[in-house]
Amino acid sequence: MTRRRQLHLNINILHAGFYASAWRSPEADPHATFDIGHYVRSAEIAERGTLDAVFLADRPALEDKPDLRPFLSLEPTVVLTAIAAATEHIGLIATASTSYNEPYNIARRFATLDLVSGGRAGWNVVTTADPNASANFGQSLPEHATRYARAKEFTEVVSELWDSWEDDAFVGDKAAARFLDPAKVHRINHKGPFFEVAGPLNLPRSPQGRPILVQAGGSGDGRDLAALHADVVFSVGEDIERARAYADDLRTRAAAYGRDPRSIVVLPGLATVIGSTEAEAKRRQEELGALIPLDYAIARLGQTFGQDLSHLELDAPVPDLPIPVNGSTTFARATLNFARQGNLTFRQLLYKLGGGIGHRVIVGTPEAIADDIEAWFVAGAADGFNLMPDVLPTGLEVFVDHVVPILRQRGLFRSHYAEKTLRERFGLPRPPNRYATPADERASA
Amino acid sequence: MTRRRQLHLNINILHAGFYASAWRSPEADPHATFDIGHYVRSAEIAERGTLDAVFLADRPALEDKPDLRPFLSLEPTVVLTAIAAATEHIGLIATASTSYNEPYNIARRFATLDLVSGGRAGWNVVTTADPNASANFGQSLPEHATRYARAKEFTEVVSELWDSWEDDAFVGDKAAARFLDPAKVHRINHKGPFFEVAGPLNLPRSPQGRPILVQAGGSGDGRDLAALHADVVFSVGEDIERARAYADDLRTRAAAYGRDPRSIVVLPGLATVIGSTEAEAKRRQEELGALIPLDYAIARLGQTFGQDLSHLELDAPVPDLPIPVNGSTTFARATLNFARQGNLTFRQLLYKLGGGIGHRVIVGTPEAIADDIEAWFVAGAADGFNLMPDVLPTGLEVFVDHVVPILRQRGLFRSHYAEKTLRERFGLPRPPNRYATPADERASA
Repeated sequence: MTRRRQLHLNINILHAGFYASAWRSPEADPHATFDIGHYVRSAEIAERGTLDAVFLADRPALEDKPDLRPFLSLEPTVVLTAIAAATEHIGLIATASTSYNEPYNIARRFATLDLVSGGRAGWNVVTTADPNASANFGQSLPEHATRYARAKEFTEVVSELWDSWEDDAFVGDKAAARFLDPAKVHRINHKGPFFEVAGPLNLPRSPQGRPILVQAGGSGDGRDLAALHADVVFSVGEDIERARAYADDLRTRAAAYGRDPRSIVVLPGLATVIGSTEAEAKRRQEELGALIPLDYAIARLGQTFGQDLSHLELDAPVPDLPIPVNGSTTFARATLNFARQGNLTFRQLLYKLGGGIGHRVIVGTPEAIADDIEAWFVAGAADGFNLMPDVLPTGLEVFVDHVVPILRQRGLFRSHYAEKTLRERFGLPRPPNRYATPADERASA
Repeated sequence: MTRRRQLHLNINILHAGFYASAWRSPEADPHATFDIGHYVRSAEIAERGTLDAVFLADRPALEDKPDLRPFLSLEPTVVLTAIAAATEHIGLIATASTSYNEPYNIARRFATLDLVSGGRAGWNVVTTADPNASANFGQSLPEHATRYARAKEFTEVVSELWDSWEDDAFVGDKAAARFLDPAKVHRINHKGPFFEVAGPLNLPRSPQGRPILVQAGGSGDGRDLAALHADVVFSVGEDIERARAYADDLRTRAAAYGRDPRSIVVLPGLATVIGSTEAEAKRRQEELGALIPLDYAIARLGQTFGQDLSHLELDAPVPDLPIPVNGSTTFARATLNFARQGNLTFRQLLYKLGGGIGHRVIVGTPEAIADDIEAWFVAGAADGFNLMPDVLPTGLEVFVDHVVPILRQRGLFRSHYAEKTLRERFGLPRPPNRYATPADERASA
């Protein structure tokens, strides 16, 4: 079965907005980061725009410089459950770290979210390269390779647990006193270098078979993990050529693992600053830029490069900074490329990042934003985007009311939700259960 | 300030109901255990009855004999978040194990639930004496003393993290670019035998200061943990005398730790089978009893005693079974006392337990149930109860519509919610923040 390629748009509800200064905008409620109503309202707007899913980043630690701007805060699966109760269709993707959790707990939490939401859950698998996080779990930051080896095994265990009940294991026959069929509920008996997990899970297979797996694989290890397990990849889109090369590389790796290369949905991050004219958009960018404390922007970029950058000359070209080995490798490399391409001074770079971490920022009219999205989509550099509006929810509202209609007019984006589960919306097949016998498969086909 | 002692009633939404056969009742939906709507509807009924809180038990494992009856399944904080969205007042207490979690994750999840629900969250601290659970986390069942030593340190770390932001740490001053006051956000730098946790938490102090801590402390270690940390104790109420002695012991231990002995709310479990006449109630008990598969009841009791009991003579008196050292010590002792007092045969014991684990079951009219509750409350054997209706939600509906009005008439139970947070409802003071200076305390007084 071939079906027309579809554009996918997730909304990254990144506290008060992508811009580090979003909370200081006159549009913003400074308390929004800690207010569940803010997340629910944003999700409701996204659902009005028939977006694919809400995406929540996460980090189990207080970030550096919390005095200057909001940070990742409320526990994401709790936030998504509240959103699930207020919405009907939109997907629910939460980040959770494989370095500071146990597979049984994660498998169970996301399967519960999938059951509770009728098949809308996704898990963004991250390894969390942050010493502030590891210090909350009695560790120093594990090496890159160790984090990814653990993540790979962790993801496999979770996937096995999600299959530990066959689809028809629940019986519920009152007369026969038969609650479930024990022959269709399987121990996984996993034994590996990082985990020993007996299983089975204590709840039925969830509506999607398995919740959607998302990965943001920039490094070789990350790409490999994504190629092996990810349904959706949240990438860093620098420019069309690099993004297409990245997507091609990912699909080639997936094919090498025996997967259908079209079964990975690649969604680069995309920060938007929208104005009704180009001049208005630029003015908005300038206003938001001016509200970012310079010492915050320098410290944030210093985190990306794993070194103090406060000694750099603000009005000289960005020097050749070394790429960190165990940290934000992908973002550091993308940022350096970006500075080189634009021949930027350090001050210009800080300004153009918007206090962010290296995701692409576009500034313009709704038409220009739609053109950019279309160009990337048509070129095969992206299957869609993980949207990061400058300020929330206002920047999202403008996107939904002014960019989405253009995308719909052009036949690029849906105007209603046709599919029931998030997996179906992404055009991905329901995974067969690894424990089911061929007879079961035939019966359920 | 003295205030009149208040009766407290929590509803334990134990899947399809307390009776092991609840799911087979004509009243029950056999799928209810996995249906979020079942939990939400039950909570809505409980809120109509102005009950104090919803209580969810938990165990991160599939229980034995899952083929014969429902078991603990959906992840409780997800369930409570869905309930929070559908209700306004009722408290939200979830069980989470200290043996198979990390303190930072638990502190964050419950603080988030408290923020999201406006101060209604509680955490029931358990150590999970179940080898099925430890096998899902690469362990064999830790010794009793080890589990409790870890639980004690775990609870301390969580409590410190909940204080890591002073109440007025959030500033949100847009003009001054001051998001929070870093002098009021504290690392905890905990280093102990089980945990090293730097902190601080990545979210503000929650509405209750700290979510309510619940403990079910039966053993000496358990009572000690409860006396040290618990706001509410979920106990096993065998009879008025033993329950009063237990409550007295707990309050004496709390006083020895320098706590106000009245600051612990003791709520024994109470399973109810209600009929409009005594005969009808007994008939209901018989019908539900007859639907419990005998091999399930024997296996369930065998779990409590940590040994296979299938060789016992059904119609002979219950023999002197040894009390397990590392397991359900409290329930085993209570069950044996119960069998002795009634001079019960093994079959009679199985029948009277309702397929349960040793919590007291009362069978009767709404008047009789209200009389029993009043007698225990007046005698100081209980500050209220953790209610476990035979079948859910029907058994709860009958309680709310027929027992609650009697308790209200007698002036024993509230007719509306007067307090904002669960902590206030339990008559407990908001805990001062351990990091606040005396000047802050005066300012906030």
